[in-house]
Amino acid sequence: MSQTPLRLGMVGGGPGAFIGAVHRTAAALDAQFQLVAGAFSSDAEKSAAMGRELGLDASRAYPDWKALMAGEAALRPEQRIQAVSVVTPNHQHLGPTIAALRAGFPVICDKPLTTSLALAEEIATAVQESGLPFCLTHNYSGYPLIAEAKELVASGAIGQVRKVFVEYLQGWLADPIEREGQKQAVWRTDPTKSGPGGSLGDIATHAFQLLEHVSGDTVARVFGKATTFVEGRSLDDDAMVLLEMAGGANGVLCSSQVCVGKENGLRLRIFGTEGGLEWQQEHPNDLWVHRKGKPSELRRAGNAYLSATSQAAGRIPAGHPEGYLEAFANLYSAFAQAVRGEQGPSFPGILEGLRGMQFVEAVLESSSADSWIPLALP
Amino acid sequence: MSQTPLRLGMVGGGPGAFIGAVHRTAAALDAQFQLVAGAFSSDAEKSAAMGRELGLDASRAYPDWKALMAGEAALRPEQRIQAVSVVTPNHQHLGPTIAALRAGFPVICDKPLTTSLALAEEIATAVQESGLPFCLTHNYSGYPLIAEAKELVASGAIGQVRKVFVEYLQGWLADPIEREGQKQAVWRTDPTKSGPGGSLGDIATHAFQLLEHVSGDTVARVFGKATTFVEGRSLDDDAMVLLEMAGGANGVLCSSQVCVGKENGLRLRIFGTEGGLEWQQEHPNDLWVHRKGKPSELRRAGNAYLSATSQAAGRIPAGHPEGYLEAFANLYSAFAQAVRGEQGPSFPGILEGLRGMQFVEAVLESSSADSWIPLALP
Amino acid sequence: MSQTPLRLGMVGGGPGAFIGAVHRTAAALDAQFQLVAGAFSSDAEKSAAMGRELGLDASRAYPDWKALMAGEAALRPEQRIQAVSVVTPNHQHLGPTIAALRAGFPVICDKPLTTSLALAEEIATAVQESGLPFCLTHNYSGYPLIAEAKELVASGAIGQVRKVFVEYLQGWLADPIEREGQKQAVWRTDPTKSGPGGSLGDIATHAFQLLEHVSGDTVARVFGKATTFVEGRSLDDDAMVLLEMAGGANGVLCSSQVCVGKENGLRLRIFGTEGGLEWQQEHPNDLWVHRKGKPSELRRAGNAYLSATSQAAGRIPAGHPEGYLEAFANLYSAFAQAVRGEQGPSFPGILEGLRGMQFVEAVLESSSADSWIPLALP
Amino acid sequence: MSQTPLRLGMVGGGPGAFIGAVHRTAAALDAQFQLVAGAFSSDAEKSAAMGRELGLDASRAYPDWKALMAGEAALRPEQRIQAVSVVTPNHQHLGPTIAALRAGFPVICDKPLTTSLALAEEIATAVQESGLPFCLTHNYSGYPLIAEAKELVASGAIGQVRKVFVEYLQGWLADPIEREGQKQAVWRTDPTKSGPGGSLGDIATHAFQLLEHVSGDTVARVFGKATTFVEGRSLDDDAMVLLEMAGGANGVLCSSQVCVGKENGLRLRIFGTEGGLEWQQEHPNDLWVHRKGKPSELRRAGNAYLSATSQAAGRIPAGHPEGYLEAFANLYSAFAQAVRGEQGPSFPGILEGLRGMQFVEAVLESSSADSWIPLALP
Repeated sequence: MSQTPLRLGMVGGGPGAFIGAVHRTAAALDAQFQLVAGAFSSDAEKSAAMGRELGLDASRAYPDWKALMAGEAALRPEQRIQAVSVVTPNHQHLGPTIAALRAGFPVICDKPLTTSLALAEEIATAVQESGLPFCLTHNYSGYPLIAEAKELVASGAIGQVRKVFVEYLQGWLADPIEREGQKQAVWRTDPTKSGPGGSLGDIATHAFQLLEHVSGDTVARVFGKATTFVEGRSLDDDAMVLLEMAGGANGVLCSSQVCVGKENGLRLRIFGTEGGLEWQQEHPNDLWVHRKGKPSELRRAGNAYLSATSQAAGRIPAGHPEGYLEAFANLYSAFAQAVRGEQGPSFPGILEGLRGMQFVEAVLESSSADSWIPLALP
Repeated sequence: MSQTPLRLGMVGGGPGAFIGAVHRTAAALDAQFQLVAGAFSSDAEKSAAMGRELGLDASRAYPDWKALMAGEAALRPEQRIQAVSVVTPNHQHLGPTIAALRAGFPVICDKPLTTSLALAEEIATAVQESGLPFCLTHNYSGYPLIAEAKELVASGAIGQVRKVFVEYLQGWLADPIEREGQKQAVWRTDPTKSGPGGSLGDIATHAFQLLEHVSGDTVARVFGKATTFVEGRSLDDDAMVLLEMAGGANGVLCSSQVCVGKENGLRLRIFGTEGGLEWQQEHPNDLWVHRKGKPSELRRAGNAYLSATSQAAGRIPAGHPEGYLEAFANLYSAFAQAVRGEQGPSFPGILEGLRGMQFVEAVLESSSADSWIPLALP
Repeated sequence: MSQTPLRLGMVGGGPGAFIGAVHRTAAALDAQFQLVAGAFSSDAEKSAAMGRELGLDASRAYPDWKALMAGEAALRPEQRIQAVSVVTPNHQHLGPTIAALRAGFPVICDKPLTTSLALAEEIATAVQESGLPFCLTHNYSGYPLIAEAKELVASGAIGQVRKVFVEYLQGWLADPIEREGQKQAVWRTDPTKSGPGGSLGDIATHAFQLLEHVSGDTVARVFGKATTFVEGRSLDDDAMVLLEMAGGANGVLCSSQVCVGKENGLRLRIFGTEGGLEWQQEHPNDLWVHRKGKPSELRRAGNAYLSATSQAAGRIPAGHPEGYLEAFANLYSAFAQAVRGEQGPSFPGILEGLRGMQFVEAVLESSSADSWIPLALP
Repeated sequence: MSQTPLRLGMVGGGPGAFIGAVHRTAAALDAQFQLVAGAFSSDAEKSAAMGRELGLDASRAYPDWKALMAGEAALRPEQRIQAVSVVTPNHQHLGPTIAALRAGFPVICDKPLTTSLALAEEIATAVQESGLPFCLTHNYSGYPLIAEAKELVASGAIGQVRKVFVEYLQGWLADPIEREGQKQAVWRTDPTKSGPGGSLGDIATHAFQLLEHVSGDTVARVFGKATTFVEGRSLDDDAMVLLEMAGGANGVLCSSQVCVGKENGLRLRIFGTEGGLEWQQEHPNDLWVHRKGKPSELRRAGNAYLSATSQAAGRIPAGHPEGYLEAFANLYSAFAQAVRGEQGPSFPGILEGLRGMQFVEAVLESSSADSWIPLALP
């Protein structure tokens, strides 16, 4: 896979940003990208400072994303960035994404796609019109054993799916830390920046995407209850959702940010007529496979008995744990192949972005209306 | 605790019955009961055979429960049974229970209480009128670490409860084994014997009782979806239920008998403002305790750091695993103390039986009506 | 299996004894024995008190074991005990065991057999001369998944065994609690009562027996190091031993009573040319099976895919955990079958007792001599 | 930490090399190094090809390490490499390491240091004479929770250490795959390339280093048994070693490459007078902490309750698993700080290299002589 790294520009990811640093590491890990330009902050000073910290040419640490697009477009093709990474808060995904696509730059954008289904559709239109690669970093689908799980379901190994359980439980927002200025908490609990979903937008969309990805099925309708447990908070910090799948299965999706003691507890379980699967993000290299009438198996990342897709998603032999950054890097590397015009692994894109917005809006509507809400495919 | 065993009579528990044998072992384990009489089957021959197998006096292996009550009542007090264990299928709990109570015999009865709330209330009346001890064997509340969990919640160790998750997942009914005559499956899937709930009656009632027991709170309303996955089956083999608790928490209860690979997967998780608890029946000697800002603890049965109640519920030192039968025996031993008129640990009784029936009926009503259904306290 | 319980007499197991109560519960659990006589303490008052507590006829709570043997022998056969359980400290196994055998009573005796190989051989002679059943309660071999493990090795499922690792780690003697009068600690650390081995006699003999039992092989020689970590203690509270097996494998056995935080950490791992096995006593219903080139399996007690022997060692379906007492009861029930003259499961006996004594003496000799010591089969 | 990456040269790491790729990713992950030069293979063609694959300037893909040193020394300082990474098989560490140091380049070298203690001392002399940073990639000490474990021991949290258990079990050499040309197996089982230790050199040295690192103590003497299980193999594929520590503790170290089903099973357990620690490399973000009389704690990477050192060794919040590559990168980043002349975290160096060689030679000598062999500090 190795070859000259692609030149990457970044929008967002200024000082103290969590996800910007993750994107930079993920982009660097397989040496498929070299960060050469950025509009890291809406504060020009901060953007310049981050550019210096990252060793960028000063002329390419732009004061804002419009300047980035213009500046880069003005460079010679062999200098100019080849892709843009958008890692701003949700409400600022749309502007730079559409601008980048229109400027001819493929985009890799943090999730959720934006703050509403209507805006998501604007981005979708821009993606479609551009014909360029677009990746939405639902990074959990980058884990090797998620690839294995997906293949097992698709192969019929667990039969026809009946039950799905997916949960994403955290505890970090159990107290109103946004009032103390915790940077992440401030914007994640602010509807003008996050959109209408709190836990729904931030983590339930991951859970939802993972479920549809692995099951190969789609959620047909939801009955949800979104709750704000912490007084004074505007957005939900918890949601619980009954699901019906198009293929006849049903199940439950839960997201929470108030489960004290849970760190980043994303867990997926799928049961079919012949077997079942269980996976937890915090021990990502373990996949339990239940088989009717036989002992359950523990499949472990990096082994030769795994599917080719799963093996290809790993870098080191079994027993050498890969983690969150490696899974994230898998999306960057797959995106790099698309940017180069090569055939590579698939990755989450605009459809996943639209579905996520549909899901958030449907759960909130259901929660208000106390009724089942359908999620027609976009 | 040791003293002369109480004389026990049993209704049900004939050849091949699963739960009858469990009750007998549980009754024997702490030597608090000696089985001296029984109406083990509605087939007099089978009842007599079981009496012989168990070494009973032939005159006390009765052809039916009416004969048992009459025969025992006719014996001298020092010979006569001192309590009755009812271990028949659900639809046959009411008759012998009421008769026993009226005959002056305390009753320990398998769960769920009966097949409807209306019938449950009849039993409740009989219990009340008799003034006698009545135990409903929601055996999972007999585990030492469930006692610990209950005390932790009550003590405020996890703060105010916000989220509850309880699930009871099995896979044994994933195929229509009732058609092959599997004895357990036949009656469990038959509404005339089980009542209107399949997984709801058999296992969701356990999950529900455990939740109310440990949380010290009550379920205020439910939104449920009951499903029959196996074609041709009359009762639900799966249910998923959103819960709102009277105390302000909410959460999810799931029961399933079609999750291939799950054995007897009862799991309880409770999260409050200051911490959380996680417990699984299949590893019952482990209790995870989450504490805000500190590492999570694993409390293990039998240790001196546990509450007195938890320690009293164990028989052997830490690291010597006790299990299902021991937890079940704890209910029998607590019941024995009540029968002897001693002060002892509390145990599930008629209230739990009424609540279980309310729960089954409310979930089924919700599932039909697609609306939230309240569960007023009886 | 059910039938009239056998009449059991007990030597030892007075007030406060840990293992006596375990033996009584194990004997009661499957209703194969009824305790009818005992010499529970060398203090006649205490013995009588325990007899009362257990509901025994006062005449059969004997002041010492000699009186027990004489008194029972004088009763009519249909009243007389049918077997004796010896649960005294190690140095008091020999007397009642030999006397019981000579009086015609089969014996089930706690481990280790006695305090020296020379004395063990005296018992062996008595067993041989009596022709009666003799069971040594190496109870860990009673677990269902130990039966499965033994069968897997014997069947060749893991190929030719190369490596064995067995450890038994506890922490309860990390401090000199014998000085505070803790009853168990007092005699376990007293060479006049325990014999020359501390951790070696108490727990390493269990580990050793389990290893030879499951592997079907014998330890050919040892290089050991016994240590006393707690100042002032006379016996080892820790030992570590390199092993060579007769069949060509090698490995390590560790015992310790000073590993703070370990409860009753008996663990066995065996690796062969084709696979491996891992089992831990504290989660006894799980058996890991490694298979070359395939995912590892987790075999769980109570499932239909297990060997018939393993299934027969369980009482309740998969997912209903059985534990220490049930495994212990398996030995009692197997012994009952032998007493009745029936064909039943095998159980540890005099050979295991001799081997244990050989092992303790060999490790101590090796530790002193800093050399490998052979363990010829007796 | 971010700043202009250091220019790195690599010796070894040609096509198909496992550890070369690991070093490159580890060097890239925190953007502290940019690979600009290499002698990737002793085959000039292969070296050039790898240089092209990595996007290097053709002139800096050298035909051998001597050319690398000469070529780089001839460049202007601002172009010239600033450090050398040596990732060849063991027998080829010495040449390029000494040459690099003499040319003024700091060295980061794969473990074990070389093939004998005598040669190790030559390298040590060169390191000392150069005064330059030297890092030996005992990467497992780079894990955040190993830092935590080390601090806990040093702080006295577990009291005085009594017992240490460290094992490194793999199964990949259970069959003679070196005969089928498996590249790793070929050189790892070849004494001319690996030196006298097989499992001892490759993995036991890691276990040994981790033990001395975390315990803060040194191994004083060993009694070992090295075994070659696979017929026809020249080096040990298994070793088991009794240890005595200088501080009075003792314990066991095991290494094996024939434990079928074990992937990369490095596990460390340390018990002291007040508590204990347990850690496994395959779940590196979990650290069990035993505390006398209290429930055991599970410390998890990335939490604010961890020591500052442990927190500094992580990149992302709790629950986002970091793994092998991140731990490896921690060594590279610490080395980068040393190269820059900054104060940074300590890392394994020449002392660890010497100790490793001492250990391998001592165990082999002990295994031959059947006696305890001391390991005096170098």
